[in-house]
Amino acid sequence: MTPTDKSQSPLRLGIAGLGTVGIGVVKIIDKKAALLEARTGRKVVITAVSARSKDKDRGVDLSAYAWESDPVALAKRDDIDVFVELMGGADGPAKDATQAAIASGKDVVTANKAMLALHGQELAEAAEARDLVIRFEAAVAGGIPVVKSLTEGLAGNEIKRVMGVMNGTCNYILTRMEETRQPYGVLFDECAKLGYLEADPTLDVGGIDAGHKLALLAAIAYGTQVDFDAITIEGIQDITLDDIEQASELGYKIKLLGVAQMSARGLEQRMTPCLVPATSPLGQLAGGTNMVVLEGDDVGQIVLRGAGAGEGPTASAVLSDICDIARGIRMATFGQNASALVAAKPAIAAIPAPYYLRLELEDKPGALAKVAFALGDAGVSIDQMRQYGNDDQYPDTSPVVIVTDACMRSSLDLAIEAARKTGVLASDPVAIRIEEV
Amino acid sequence: MTPTDKSQSPLRLGIAGLGTVGIGVVKIIDKKAALLEARTGRKVVITAVSARSKDKDRGVDLSAYAWESDPVALAKRDDIDVFVELMGGADGPAKDATQAAIASGKDVVTANKAMLALHGQELAEAAEARDLVIRFEAAVAGGIPVVKSLTEGLAGNEIKRVMGVMNGTCNYILTRMEETRQPYGVLFDECAKLGYLEADPTLDVGGIDAGHKLALLAAIAYGTQVDFDAITIEGIQDITLDDIEQASELGYKIKLLGVAQMSARGLEQRMTPCLVPATSPLGQLAGGTNMVVLEGDDVGQIVLRGAGAGEGPTASAVLSDICDIARGIRMATFGQNASALVAAKPAIAAIPAPYYLRLELEDKPGALAKVAFALGDAGVSIDQMRQYGNDDQYPDTSPVVIVTDACMRSSLDLAIEAARKTGVLASDPVAIRIEEV
Repeated sequence: MTPTDKSQSPLRLGIAGLGTVGIGVVKIIDKKAALLEARTGRKVVITAVSARSKDKDRGVDLSAYAWESDPVALAKRDDIDVFVELMGGADGPAKDATQAAIASGKDVVTANKAMLALHGQELAEAAEARDLVIRFEAAVAGGIPVVKSLTEGLAGNEIKRVMGVMNGTCNYILTRMEETRQPYGVLFDECAKLGYLEADPTLDVGGIDAGHKLALLAAIAYGTQVDFDAITIEGIQDITLDDIEQASELGYKIKLLGVAQMSARGLEQRMTPCLVPATSPLGQLAGGTNMVVLEGDDVGQIVLRGAGAGEGPTASAVLSDICDIARGIRMATFGQNASALVAAKPAIAAIPAPYYLRLELEDKPGALAKVAFALGDAGVSIDQMRQYGNDDQYPDTSPVVIVTDACMRSSLDLAIEAARKTGVLASDPVAIRIEEV
Repeated sequence: MTPTDKSQSPLRLGIAGLGTVGIGVVKIIDKKAALLEARTGRKVVITAVSARSKDKDRGVDLSAYAWESDPVALAKRDDIDVFVELMGGADGPAKDATQAAIASGKDVVTANKAMLALHGQELAEAAEARDLVIRFEAAVAGGIPVVKSLTEGLAGNEIKRVMGVMNGTCNYILTRMEETRQPYGVLFDECAKLGYLEADPTLDVGGIDAGHKLALLAAIAYGTQVDFDAITIEGIQDITLDDIEQASELGYKIKLLGVAQMSARGLEQRMTPCLVPATSPLGQLAGGTNMVVLEGDDVGQIVLRGAGAGEGPTASAVLSDICDIARGIRMATFGQNASALVAAKPAIAAIPAPYYLRLELEDKPGALAKVAFALGDAGVSIDQMRQYGNDDQYPDTSPVVIVTDACMRSSLDLAIEAARKTGVLASDPVAIRIEEV
């Protein structure tokens, strides 16, 4: 058994990327050498590092490690066993260096969700052909051991649904909108000031970053090839304070929720704003914390909650993968042979759900009845309806909120079209899925 | 890499114990043979089974498996690779058969928390001496992959605290007491009728079952020898409706909470009723669900929630261990070499906390002032105090609830003794720790 063999040679790491996470990993390996050796049965050592600027002060002493200005050269070094890729970016140096690492027989640990969401199948096949592993716990939901829980902890389950709030910035904005009653734009600016946003903020608020994570979990859950392009992605940019408050009145919270679910029609992957019950674990998740919900046929619902970003949590996940490799744990990239993963048939809007509808009606007699009739005629039945007054915000119109019974999105779209034709809608309706959790 | 080698021989299981969990495992292996093979790269097959009665109708066809009436004989069979122990019981047949399995070179998967809490060190050393593994995901918190998350997912962390609500029956009783405003005895009887209680109900409501689980997590978290006897255990039998309601008024819920925490004074392990903030994940946990909170120096707080018992969830955890073995994952029983685990110095009441105090005062002038003075004099300061009236329930006395500032339990005990000496206490005070989460 690997952990009992104290005579083993050290596990030698080459770390590419010395930003927050990279430095976090260096610090842990420096500080906890004895703990890591006790737990894994091997010394874990850093041999070489690479980053853009050698001279930058990163607050840690890197002088004991060889320096490579080129991550590809680092990946190819004969004196490393594991290439730790913490540069980021779907293509370019990260991918080049990862490919070079595999070509030269190195295991890979990465936090790079974009690279794996777009090139995961190709990289997994390359690694498998050489009996190497690519591990990526840090790529999904930061410190939460969700890749491990899904791949190994739930290995005996047919997965029924994977859900997750996996972008802390989006959840922070939505939570703060409700707390402060300030609109999206104000909170977006607050996040920008606090440094919570990616260089391209669309990655966060547009749902792309969280979409990358969902694509990885879906591949593991369903034994399918990672297929980021098949995800229906909507960001939170259009969520209004009004929707958040109306949802709250109805007992819901609005979350940027990722859902991957297999049905007879195929694999549905969505990263979109959804209403979830306020009393559910997802509904209670406030602020920048992440949560993933895994549903298996035998295990039922497992909820995992923790920090989704930051130096410590992300470095912790990187260390989890490094320790696995040190312990001799060899796991296929997506939990099973890459060559056996099938391309899932993508399904879009194939699973019925109730919807939240917000309509602004012209303040005319019979307007509400006309809309209700149009919805019913299109086969969408109404579970709840609330007209919430004619206040200053809407001097000449009546806002109405409707919760429908579960229906197909296509039926809802037909119903909305029919409602439009009544001529009593003062503005475009807002429709948000309610995910039953 | 193990998972890619399709040519491997099947992994052959011998299952001892065909109760709810054992039959659950048989069903999964029957039904999901293809899925398990795809995920692990090996066929997983049952060779032989054992239980007390061969003729009992268990609702599944067992005719394809060899039958052993003696679990020790099963454990020794040459045609099994893994002995799956699902009989239960700290000693007796479960331990005999586990020892026999190890002696004859078999890996062990077990759901037996009592056996491991009491004999884990001895069994782990025996397994290690023969390069075998003992895996026990199902022994702690049912379907929640907590052993894996702690051992592997948080391997890079120094663990700061482990907390858990790990007995669903106790949490069900406490939740229902608050919901129905019925006393403990009534809800205990309800649980008995529903079949929620162990044959010896003290295992549940006395905190022993949950204590076994805590002892296992503590050993993994701190690299110490499992030490069940060092746990301070109190059950929920004395929790009154009054305490639940007063706690609720103050913004807390009462939970049977396990806490393992290392301090300079040693390893403190408690399984006792505690107040936790109502808005925390632990506070929000209603009904029979389990929750474990893992705190690491880098990862921060990770919360895991799911079903802690039942056929599907427990069998799911057993399958997780079986799949790990099929995948070639070899993990030391408590996450590091058994021979290197140290005996922790037990610490009792070494960590300060605020306390909830409920006192019944004689309805005399100055009674409250006397008690407040006695507490202060003993060095316990008061954060909140509420006198809640002189109703029918207490015709001649005044009930008072106090929340103290954080203090040592020893100081609190001195303070309570001093309060007693004032002569104004009409009954024994109730003191419950408030765990800050």
